[in-house]
Amino acid sequence: MTQAMKNDPAMIGIDWGTSSLRAYLMSAQGDVLDRVARTSGILNVPDGDFAFVLEEACGKWMERWPHLPILMCGMIGSRQGWREAPYLTGSAGPRELADSLVTVTTGRQKVQIVPGLQSLSFSGNPDVMRGEETILIGALALGAPKDGLYCLPGTHSKWVRMVDGRISAFSTFLTGEIFDSLSRRSILSALIDGSTPAAGQTVPDAFADGVDLATREGGLLHQLFSIRAQVLTGHLDEACVADTLSGLLIGSELTSVRRQLEDHHEKLVLVASGSMADRYRIALSHLGHVPMLQDAETACRQGLWAIAGEALGTSVPVAMTT
Amino acid sequence: MTQAMKNDPAMIGIDWGTSSLRAYLMSAQGDVLDRVARTSGILNVPDGDFAFVLEEACGKWMERWPHLPILMCGMIGSRQGWREAPYLTGSAGPRELADSLVTVTTGRQKVQIVPGLQSLSFSGNPDVMRGEETILIGALALGAPKDGLYCLPGTHSKWVRMVDGRISAFSTFLTGEIFDSLSRRSILSALIDGSTPAAGQTVPDAFADGVDLATREGGLLHQLFSIRAQVLTGHLDEACVADTLSGLLIGSELTSVRRQLEDHHEKLVLVASGSMADRYRIALSHLGHVPMLQDAETACRQGLWAIAGEALGTSVPVAMTT
Repeated sequence: MTQAMKNDPAMIGIDWGTSSLRAYLMSAQGDVLDRVARTSGILNVPDGDFAFVLEEACGKWMERWPHLPILMCGMIGSRQGWREAPYLTGSAGPRELADSLVTVTTGRQKVQIVPGLQSLSFSGNPDVMRGEETILIGALALGAPKDGLYCLPGTHSKWVRMVDGRISAFSTFLTGEIFDSLSRRSILSALIDGSTPAAGQTVPDAFADGVDLATREGGLLHQLFSIRAQVLTGHLDEACVADTLSGLLIGSELTSVRRQLEDHHEKLVLVASGSMADRYRIALSHLGHVPMLQDAETACRQGLWAIAGEALGTSVPVAMTT
Repeated sequence: MTQAMKNDPAMIGIDWGTSSLRAYLMSAQGDVLDRVARTSGILNVPDGDFAFVLEEACGKWMERWPHLPILMCGMIGSRQGWREAPYLTGSAGPRELADSLVTVTTGRQKVQIVPGLQSLSFSGNPDVMRGEETILIGALALGAPKDGLYCLPGTHSKWVRMVDGRISAFSTFLTGEIFDSLSRRSILSALIDGSTPAAGQTVPDAFADGVDLATREGGLLHQLFSIRAQVLTGHLDEACVADTLSGLLIGSELTSVRRQLEDHHEKLVLVASGSMADRYRIALSHLGHVPMLQDAETACRQGLWAIAGEALGTSVPVAMTT
């Protein structure tokens, strides 16, 4: 393979979520040749003109290489997005995802969207994901175990059972959203002095204390109030409230997947980035679990690359016309 | 006793909370002779001039009967209130509360404040109440059992073990605050079509389904997301989201006090008013429990009356000078 071929663009992959758009120009080997990032999440697209935003972000690539396959994942395929890509049901791997891409067209070419998944959670409730399926496929492509328990923390954290390289049951937790909500407007927010854990420095003991609080009896609704009661009765410093709250919520999530954690102790994969990865790693470690770590952004673009390759019937994506 | 004596004012009782003030002119028999209500909760008092608000609300009574004892309960005794009435620790009855009243003075007379309580929750965490102690004493005065389990639902729901007429352990739950928060700003609020359960009509099955959801495995953070997933996958009508959310949160609270409910099955007292009373009664009934019901507002003013009587060393309050 010549150097020229190695650096030839083979696809455009786009992670288009609620609050941001990240696009990658990738080679047939899955290398990133160029990238752009925009704050034009699907809720921030004027007049719903998704084609316009796509042109603005990726037009220079699309003009120069007009025949590159373009694959998008994330909330762009939701009811509020460009076009709804209906949820696939049952377990799914790259093949099923590639077989169910939904196509939209811009003025100059077609663009495909990865569908989300619908399944039953660990406790038998309906559950859904959109975007995480691509991250998971990317984690597999990067060498994560084909059988194991995957944790994708975030606003809506996902815990996923992977069976033979296919996404099986998964459970979603409102952890990040509840943390944001209680940090901003609640009886606790007045105690949080502007610096949320995401922005500021972790107070390790306070975070661990929150994780411990979650493992005890009482229930989350009581444990949340008890953070305030601890401050009022002099048992907790106000400066520690944000970290204790973060530890409590993450700990509550981990407590809810305790059985899965015990069953997959040796094959636990944390797909996350930055401070989110740190917090979950610390909380898991505090409860005796050591996860393998994969970077979420890297996994997402590798997932787009792997699904594009599957869709094109090749092991790796190649441009349809060169 | 003459009719004139029976209608003589004997005290002024004031329930002064975060968002409202309710004042009662009461006879020695505990009858309400007059009442006022204001929206001047402690967070809505200009320049922190509590004496001014008190004069505006109760000045006509204070002028006509300048020697009436005045007793206040609620957040007026918190750090953000008129003066902090430090939490009493350990179990407490009317005697301990009456012995620890905190006094403030207006231009014309002194006013006393009932202290809050500090205790350990059912699960051993620090917990506090302020205002509910007065409601509980009032419930006892109205004939509720001296030994039993009391539920006081609200923004911060309280579950209280009463032992020999004294408030013992209690646990607080953030139930109402989380419901408000998720109804207004969350991934679920977009699905809630303006009409919250408090304002609108209950969809009984949706509420019961929420209670059931709470009793199953998965954890509250997952169950909250599953409400959204049920809508997205066609298992739940959007019009039912608010009621299912309400049922889930109340059910989660009840699940957390399951052991206490089993231990006090025969002596369960629900102290509540209006739709809040309805919701908790329905949820309790759904899980096989039938509480005695007492009206919360009535219990509060009877508690003020009973504590005032105790403070004055008489079985019922009498004006210090008539």
